[in-house]
Amino acid sequence: MKVIHTADWHLGKILNGQSFLEDQKYILKQFIKAMETEKPDLIVIAGDLYDTSYPSKEAIQLLESTISELNLKLQIPIIMISGNHDGKARLNYGASWFEHSKLYIRTELSTMHQPISFEEVDFYTLPFATLSEMQHYFPDENLKSYDEAVECCLKHMSTGLDKNKLNVLIAHMTVAGGIRSESERPLTIGTVEQVPEKYMEHFDTVMLGHLHHPFSIQSDYVFYSGSLLQYSFSETNQPKGYRRVLLELPHEVKSTFIAMQPLRELEVIEATYDDVIQDRIAVKNKDNYIHFKLSEMSHISDPIMNIKQLYKNVLALTNHSQTFEHQFTDREIKKLSDQTIIETFYEEMTHKDLSEIQKKKVTQLLNDIMRGDNT
Amino acid sequence: MKVIHTADWHLGKILNGQSFLEDQKYILKQFIKAMETEKPDLIVIAGDLYDTSYPSKEAIQLLESTISELNLKLQIPIIMISGNHDGKARLNYGASWFEHSKLYIRTELSTMHQPISFEEVDFYTLPFATLSEMQHYFPDENLKSYDEAVECCLKHMSTGLDKNKLNVLIAHMTVAGGIRSESERPLTIGTVEQVPEKYMEHFDTVMLGHLHHPFSIQSDYVFYSGSLLQYSFSETNQPKGYRRVLLELPHEVKSTFIAMQPLRELEVIEATYDDVIQDRIAVKNKDNYIHFKLSEMSHISDPIMNIKQLYKNVLALTNHSQTFEHQFTDREIKKLSDQTIIETFYEEMTHKDLSEIQKKKVTQLLNDIMRGDNT
Repeated sequence: MKVIHTADWHLGKILNGQSFLEDQKYILKQFIKAMETEKPDLIVIAGDLYDTSYPSKEAIQLLESTISELNLKLQIPIIMISGNHDGKARLNYGASWFEHSKLYIRTELSTMHQPISFEEVDFYTLPFATLSEMQHYFPDENLKSYDEAVECCLKHMSTGLDKNKLNVLIAHMTVAGGIRSESERPLTIGTVEQVPEKYMEHFDTVMLGHLHHPFSIQSDYVFYSGSLLQYSFSETNQPKGYRRVLLELPHEVKSTFIAMQPLRELEVIEATYDDVIQDRIAVKNKDNYIHFKLSEMSHISDPIMNIKQLYKNVLALTNHSQTFEHQFTDREIKKLSDQTIIETFYEEMTHKDLSEIQKKKVTQLLNDIMRGDNT
Repeated sequence: MKVIHTADWHLGKILNGQSFLEDQKYILKQFIKAMETEKPDLIVIAGDLYDTSYPSKEAIQLLESTISELNLKLQIPIIMISGNHDGKARLNYGASWFEHSKLYIRTELSTMHQPISFEEVDFYTLPFATLSEMQHYFPDENLKSYDEAVECCLKHMSTGLDKNKLNVLIAHMTVAGGIRSESERPLTIGTVEQVPEKYMEHFDTVMLGHLHHPFSIQSDYVFYSGSLLQYSFSETNQPKGYRRVLLELPHEVKSTFIAMQPLRELEVIEATYDDVIQDRIAVKNKDNYIHFKLSEMSHISDPIMNIKQLYKNVLALTNHSQTFEHQFTDREIKKLSDQTIIETFYEEMTHKDLSEIQKKKVTQLLNDIMRGDNT
C-alpha cells in the first residue's frame, strides 16, 4: 500500500503581516500535480490544516478546493486529524457526509479505538487533545501531566491492535528529542511536553504532525512529514515536501521524504546596511521573504523603506548594533518556555523577580492566549 | 410529491443580548419529530439558515446536527439556498460532497438555470444576491435597480422551463405587498426593494424566505413559510411553523401552514410599573421574552432589576412617560428606510437638513454595515 504523509499546512498563516496564501495556493497546486503522478492509495494529513481556529474565507476555500481535487476528482481516500492550531468544530463540519467519499476527518478522542481499515492496514488516529480533554476522557486514570495522558491514550489504543495487520498511528504531538521551530505553537504552557518514542512501539509506523522539520527525529518507524512551507525564520534552509510511505505485510515500512519547490523561501541575511543597499550581498532569490539582521545603520532614518525598493518581501529588519546583553544564546532561548522568557526579561530589565502573583498572572495570560477561542 | 417548506432559521440569533440557541434547539427537535411523521419527499429551506455570516461554533453545530438527522438518519433530501444573513462560503462548505446524499446547497447565481429534478418536479433556486452581484452576472443588461435585476434573473430562468413538468422556484426576497418585521434586515439600503408577484408567474409555485410572517402575502401560488421563531417584538402573536406543500401534475399546488409550539414566545406588555410589580397584569407565560412598555416609573431607580425578579426573561423595558414628539407613528416608521429615519432624526434634533455630503456618508456607512464581512 502506498500512502502519502503530509501535515502542518497552516492555511491562512500570516507572518509579520504577510499572508502566505499565494504561496500556499502555489505549493498545493504542486502537491495536487504530484498526487496525479504518485497515485497513492491514501493521503494522511496529520493535523494543523489551518493556522487558526477562525480561518479566513480564503483559507477555508483553499482547503475545500484542494481536498475536493484530491478526494472527489482524483478519487484518493484521505484521513485527516486536527492539530493544536485547528478548531475542531470548524474542521469536523460535514464529516458524516464526507465519509461516503472516503474522506475521514477525526477530531475527537472517542474514535481513538476505531481504526480506519484499508485491507491489511489499520490506521489509528490520535488528534491533538489538551491535558484537560484527556483527563475528562479518562476520568478514572488520575492523569497529571500531558505526557502521562498521551501515554495513557497510546496504551489504550495498543491493547486493541490486530497483530495480523499492519498498524499505523496518525497523531499530532512532539516526540522526545525532536528538533523544534518557532512556528510550532507549544502544546501546553510552562512545560516542554515530549512523548517518548517507546510509547508508540506497538505500532508498525507512526505518521506525525506538529514539528515542522521533516527530519525532526531519528527513528526507523516514527516520522514527521514536516510542514508544507517554511513558516518561521528558524526554518530557513529546512527542506519542505511530503513523505511517500510504502507499507507491506508483515511489518515492512519505507518512508521517503520528497522535497517540493516553493514559490518563495525564507532567508536570513546578516550584513551591514551599506552592503545591502549597494547590492554587495548574496541572496538566493530577491523575491524571498527576508529577515535582514543589519549593523551600521543607526544613521539611517527609514532603512526599511530603502531596502523594500530592492527586496520587496522583506519581512523583518533588526538592528544588530543595538543588542541587549543576552543571558542566553539564540539556541538556548529556543529551548525555553514562554513563561521563562518573560520572567528572565523582567528580571533583566528591572533587576527584580516576578512576584508569585505576577507569575500566576503571566501563566494565566499565556494560557488564555494559547487557548484562543478554540472552536 | 410532498415537500416541506421552511426558511429563516436564523441560528445563532441574539436579541438584546439574549441568545435564542436553547429555543432554536427546542424547536428544531420538534421539527425533526414532525418530519418523522410527515415523511416528506423533500425539505426546502429558503435562506437565512444562520443569523450572521460568522456564526458561532454552537450555531454551526446545531445546523450540522439537525441537517444530519434529517438528511442522513431520516434520509430526506434537502435543498437549501443562502439568504442575506448567510455567508455563502460558510454555508456552501462541503456542498460537492453533500450532493451524494441529496443535500443540495445553492449559494451562487450561476446555478439558477440548473433545476434540481425530482421526477415530475423541477426545483429552481435563486439564492440571495446583491444588485452588484447580479450586475456582474449579467454584464450586458445594464441593470439599475434591485427589482430590475431580480426581474432579469427570473426572465432568464423562465425561458428554460419544461412545461411538461411542475416548476418550483425557491428564492429569498421581498415580494411586493408583503408584511415586514423588524428582524428582516433590509436587502438594500435607501430603497425598499419589492419584487412584483407577476415576475414569477411562469412558475407553478414559489417557496420564499426573507419575510418572517407565514401569511406575509395573499397569493394562490407564492408563499412564505415564515421564520422558525418570533425574532423581534414586531412578530409577537405571529404563528410560527412550516408549510406542507403537495404538488401534483399538471399544475396542482396545495400549501398548508402547520404551526409549531415554541419553548418561549415574545410578548409586549403595556402597563404601569406598579401593575407589573404587584402582579396585576395578564402575561401569557412568565418565561416568555417580554418587552415592557411602562408608564409611571420615573421614581424608580433600577426598575429592570425589580422586574427581573418576577420575569426572568425580560428583554426590553421602555419608559412610556418619556417619549419624543414623533413625526411618524410606529407603523409608519416601519415602512421607512434606515436612511430616511436617520435624515428625519437629524432634522428633528438640529432643525437643519443633512448636506449632500453628509447624506452620501450615511449611505456609505449603512452599506458598509449591511454588507458586513459577508463571507
